Amino acid sequence: MNFASDNWAGAHPSINEALARHSHGFASAYGTSDLDREIEDQFCNIFERQVAVFFVSTGTAANSLSMALTMKPGGVCFAHEAAHVIADEGGAPEFLSGGGRLRGVSGELGRIDPAALEAAIADYPAEFVHAGQPASVSITQASEIGTVYDLKQIDAISSIAKKHGLPLHMDGARFANALVSLDATPAEMTWKRGVDILSFGGTKNGCWCAEAIVVMNPDKAREMPFIRKRSAQLFSKSRFVAAQFAGYFAEDLWLKTARHANAMGRRLAESLASAGTARLAWQPQANEIFLIIEKQKADAALQAGARFYPWPVPRDVSCGENEGLYRFVTSFATREEDVDALADLLK
Amino acid sequence: MNFASDNWAGAHPSINEALARHSHGFASAYGTSDLDREIEDQFCNIFERQVAVFFVSTGTAANSLSMALTMKPGGVCFAHEAAHVIADEGGAPEFLSGGGRLRGVSGELGRIDPAALEAAIADYPAEFVHAGQPASVSITQASEIGTVYDLKQIDAISSIAKKHGLPLHMDGARFANALVSLDATPAEMTWKRGVDILSFGGTKNGCWCAEAIVVMNPDKAREMPFIRKRSAQLFSKSRFVAAQFAGYFAEDLWLKTARHANAMGRRLAESLASAGTARLAWQPQANEIFLIIEKQKADAALQAGARFYPWPVPRDVSCGENEGLYRFVTSFATREEDVDALADLLK
Amino acid sequence: MNFASDNWAGAHPSINEALARHSHGFASAYGTSDLDREIEDQFCNIFERQVAVFFVSTGTAANSLSMALTMKPGGVCFAHEAAHVIADEGGAPEFLSGGGRLRGVSGELGRIDPAALEAAIADYPAEFVHAGQPASVSITQASEIGTVYDLKQIDAISSIAKKHGLPLHMDGARFANALVSLDATPAEMTWKRGVDILSFGGTKNGCWCAEAIVVMNPDKAREMPFIRKRSAQLFSKSRFVAAQFAGYFAEDLWLKTARHANAMGRRLAESLASAGTARLAWQPQANEIFLIIEKQKADAALQAGARFYPWPVPRDVSCGENEGLYRFVTSFATREEDVDALADLLK
Amino acid sequence: MNFASDNWAGAHPSINEALARHSHGFASAYGTSDLDREIEDQFCNIFERQVAVFFVSTGTAANSLSMALTMKPGGVCFAHEAAHVIADEGGAPEFLSGGGRLRGVSGELGRIDPAALEAAIADYPAEFVHAGQPASVSITQASEIGTVYDLKQIDAISSIAKKHGLPLHMDGARFANALVSLDATPAEMTWKRGVDILSFGGTKNGCWCAEAIVVMNPDKAREMPFIRKRSAQLFSKSRFVAAQFAGYFAEDLWLKTARHANAMGRRLAESLASAGTARLAWQPQANEIFLIIEKQKADAALQAGARFYPWPVPRDVSCGENEGLYRFVTSFATREEDVDALADLLK
Repeated sequence: MNFASDNWAGAHPSINEALARHSHGFASAYGTSDLDREIEDQFCNIFERQVAVFFVSTGTAANSLSMALTMKPGGVCFAHEAAHVIADEGGAPEFLSGGGRLRGVSGELGRIDPAALEAAIADYPAEFVHAGQPASVSITQASEIGTVYDLKQIDAISSIAKKHGLPLHMDGARFANALVSLDATPAEMTWKRGVDILSFGGTKNGCWCAEAIVVMNPDKAREMPFIRKRSAQLFSKSRFVAAQFAGYFAEDLWLKTARHANAMGRRLAESLASAGTARLAWQPQANEIFLIIEKQKADAALQAGARFYPWPVPRDVSCGENEGLYRFVTSFATREEDVDALADLLK
Repeated sequence: MNFASDNWAGAHPSINEALARHSHGFASAYGTSDLDREIEDQFCNIFERQVAVFFVSTGTAANSLSMALTMKPGGVCFAHEAAHVIADEGGAPEFLSGGGRLRGVSGELGRIDPAALEAAIADYPAEFVHAGQPASVSITQASEIGTVYDLKQIDAISSIAKKHGLPLHMDGARFANALVSLDATPAEMTWKRGVDILSFGGTKNGCWCAEAIVVMNPDKAREMPFIRKRSAQLFSKSRFVAAQFAGYFAEDLWLKTARHANAMGRRLAESLASAGTARLAWQPQANEIFLIIEKQKADAALQAGARFYPWPVPRDVSCGENEGLYRFVTSFATREEDVDALADLLK
Repeated sequence: MNFASDNWAGAHPSINEALARHSHGFASAYGTSDLDREIEDQFCNIFERQVAVFFVSTGTAANSLSMALTMKPGGVCFAHEAAHVIADEGGAPEFLSGGGRLRGVSGELGRIDPAALEAAIADYPAEFVHAGQPASVSITQASEIGTVYDLKQIDAISSIAKKHGLPLHMDGARFANALVSLDATPAEMTWKRGVDILSFGGTKNGCWCAEAIVVMNPDKAREMPFIRKRSAQLFSKSRFVAAQFAGYFAEDLWLKTARHANAMGRRLAESLASAGTARLAWQPQANEIFLIIEKQKADAALQAGARFYPWPVPRDVSCGENEGLYRFVTSFATREEDVDALADLLK
Repeated sequence: MNFASDNWAGAHPSINEALARHSHGFASAYGTSDLDREIEDQFCNIFERQVAVFFVSTGTAANSLSMALTMKPGGVCFAHEAAHVIADEGGAPEFLSGGGRLRGVSGELGRIDPAALEAAIADYPAEFVHAGQPASVSITQASEIGTVYDLKQIDAISSIAKKHGLPLHMDGARFANALVSLDATPAEMTWKRGVDILSFGGTKNGCWCAEAIVVMNPDKAREMPFIRKRSAQLFSKSRFVAAQFAGYFAEDLWLKTARHANAMGRRLAESLASAGTARLAWQPQANEIFLIIEKQKADAALQAGARFYPWPVPRDVSCGENEGLYRFVTSFATREEDVDALADLLK
């Protein structure tokens, strides 16, 4: 009954098998092996276009180097005020972009509000050095609170970014969960909407350590090899990341694990809601479920061994005095019986 | 017959097994799992003292964050002029230490000359802001050219560093190869000599991706968790690195693979030298062998499928017109028959 | 009738005279001349304690290097969300502190709200690397909107900073205007309240270019000479800044010019308010006056040659449809007749 | 008898007069005043083309921001190994260029050797991320040891830079001294030779604080306003620098002061050499004279109140056991009688 986070899960057996399969023999280092090339081709197929792919070690690295690639002197990246890049990356995006800044933008349910984005950009008029200059926009898909931008919502953000000549980045630490939630193709959810750079996460969805930066227009990625190297993110045995992606993409494993995680989330939500045990704080769209539960019940479940986290209550969520807000995260490793056992515990 | 580099080898089967063994179940993320703690304890045992251990993704990261931990405003780290940190890390040490500088120091056979180190430090007199201030000294063990500092040589560098109040860093990307070459204990080769911080490399010696920063005095490591996070080097599924170290340390695998690699290097050197096929450019002490060979023979071997690299000829090495200098790197994966086949080819 | 900004004024004649007086002969460079030392002593006298003084070229530099001195890895400086360091310094504080971050804190009338400060600091729990770590608190005195923290208000902020072990910085670009407004001594407004570092501005109050960082405890300033040099802020002919301060402090010129500027501000406010021409958006306490005026009248005055700027209307200020909010800044160079002419124009 | 350095001199009276003349009235801040524009036009006239001009506070800032403008990720700037940017700027170029690196290149008499430059650049092959990438070349004119590149020597460096697509920077802290030494025009010594960016120094040659970055092709300077602001180098009362340049350029004052300084240097050299008191270490070409003198005589002169500095003896300069090498710097403020008095003292 572990719902603490999807990065508490280990590795999917198929990922381990792929790693073992590719562990033999010699292969050229630093991302130049045949396997590295093969996986890059798979990315191109999956995205239905020529893309540039850069493996890095963490989601924070993927986001930070994406921001670095698009940074300008005095530059500002706009992101949701509760985004991971602002709240949970220890200043890495600012540090690794050479002192770039992040500007928080408000918006309901973890998604940037287009009008608020316009207003924020307007604080940086052209050539006004005192404020600095807009450099990029970043959205999180799925968001920190388990919601997803639908395609039109991405279009709305993208058109503002394009109007101001700003590249659009997508933090896809949970890319697969959002993708299957929308039932869209990778192309439809990214470059067909105007997304220029993507942090493509595999770690939370069943890999050990498999994160990639995908630059939709390879011409714009020319400095990335140097940005990655100077940030100490170039793996020598790069093929071990490639091997994970080999297992991840084979027979659409990544879509299956994401669908499973989302389904387990829905099962949890429905089971608890229908039993009257809990209320949904908002409608989940991926693999993070936020529930309002009687504190006493939640504490009892935690003491009985369930793992999940309390969450700060947003202003627009009404929560009784004896209630608390709690986050439950599902993953490829969540089993139906875990969900049902939790539901029993919380009754 | 692949002697291109030790990072062309894959993973040792025991490392893969350890990874698979630890891939199941849930474990807390970001380096807080039981397995992470267990491996930290193993490091303490191996180094015979309480040490602080930080996993990072690359050797470049280990070196760069070590330099960051000891950096000062306007600070300078002294390293051999041919050291990996100066020549081969794409500016990462400078970038990740917030603009710190590296000052190359001369010395024979890849080792810093103590007198040259004294002279270099003297270029930065106390409180002379125009020059900047000394911040640390870094040595590479084994060195870029396969030589090793013996314990007295480390003492000599260490005493200069201590005299000037400078922390001493050891780049141990090939720590194990140097250790078994000296037949010393980890403690004897590091803190008993005055080494304060170590980049402890496991990747080249049989792991997929297992690099750790070892700070000998944990009190001096207090800022490292934040330095690591802001540099995007904190793995979420940190246990996958811990699992590799579990396999690495079990039954002294790491010492065995290093001894094997060094032995294969010696076999290669002796075989070629005794046959008169090649001359040693200098005496190898670890797993990198530098040989002077007739260019024609070397080319023929390369065409026949052998993999090794030509190397720039240092001033103090005499090389005939028809000869070239070549580097051969051995690893856990090098087999006796590969060495012998290469020897045959080069005859 | 120029009320555009106090940095539109030139130099006070006494400043020019001092500069000319000290322009002859040879003096050692880089802040080591007798005159430099003499001015440092004057700072000690003025602040009634031993302080460390560092001249820099701009107010932005003073703020940024103050932030750099107190920065930590992953560190965050807390400042009012409308503070100059956040809104108007083009990212210099972040860049020059090596990637430090600024966190905006709300509060009425340009002053940090203590409760909001506590809440903001609470977002960075001890050792929680994902958020980063608190590094310092910065207040602006006088604030961006012409208000002043009274001594108790500084105490309130200071006690929170101290409780969390955070150094307290004061951005005193308009230090003198605030000082005479409170009728306090420099000591009372700074270290007696717990201020640790001060950006002491002379430029806006009659100098050409005279900004100093004052560190109240010189022991904490040991790295500042190197921080200043690496930021390219060490003047070779440092005595030309010292000379300006010589003129600035002589016969309390600095207090007189500040009192004059504040008095001209009051005259403007009273004159317009009593005539019913304008309403004060809030009570001015220094040399920046914010008035709500009929747009038509304001436009007419601007066309007639008056210089002042429109200002964004804060949420809690009620402004009629035909009205606008405007900022008027007075300085040592503002004459009574300018104020009266403006009042006439706006009638 | 002060020959310590040209930055020990104060300000030329004409500079002070210009400052006083422009100290009255209001003028728009941050480099947008009429006077700022006027001086920019003068720069264009002097350089016989449209250039972009950016005032900064120090020569170190001019060099560092020039390097920042041309920096690339993992980038390296090539400069003479004894250049001011490498030896005397406390790491500012590296820090302010976001972690860029400086690579020292050898060469006789303070000038880069073209062959050594080619060899240094060759250490950074295209797309080889481990080394990093070449970003720019910087030459110092006049050099740190009082020598000057003649026009053909600049051509030689420039053609190498152009061949590799690298912008060429000139550190002109003593630009005027070099210019009159060559009897060339500013255009001939810079962009007609391929110089792309110039640190144009006025401080050492009679100003208080007047340094400018001159970008020969304004299209390449678009990011500089933001680079300058984020480095805290944008003066609010920018006109006080403009005013100094107004005095500097009026009636060719700058060329006269430079000619005078150089002439005083020659007088010193000739006077001492002809008297047999001293030997020239090398032929001076600007306003820094390096003489080999009996230590006893030098000490006596220093004790008698003369000011000049001992200098480390380069390998290729032969110096007797009882002799020392000494540097003498002349400036606009050096008088013939000072030179003669020194010559007397040293006899």
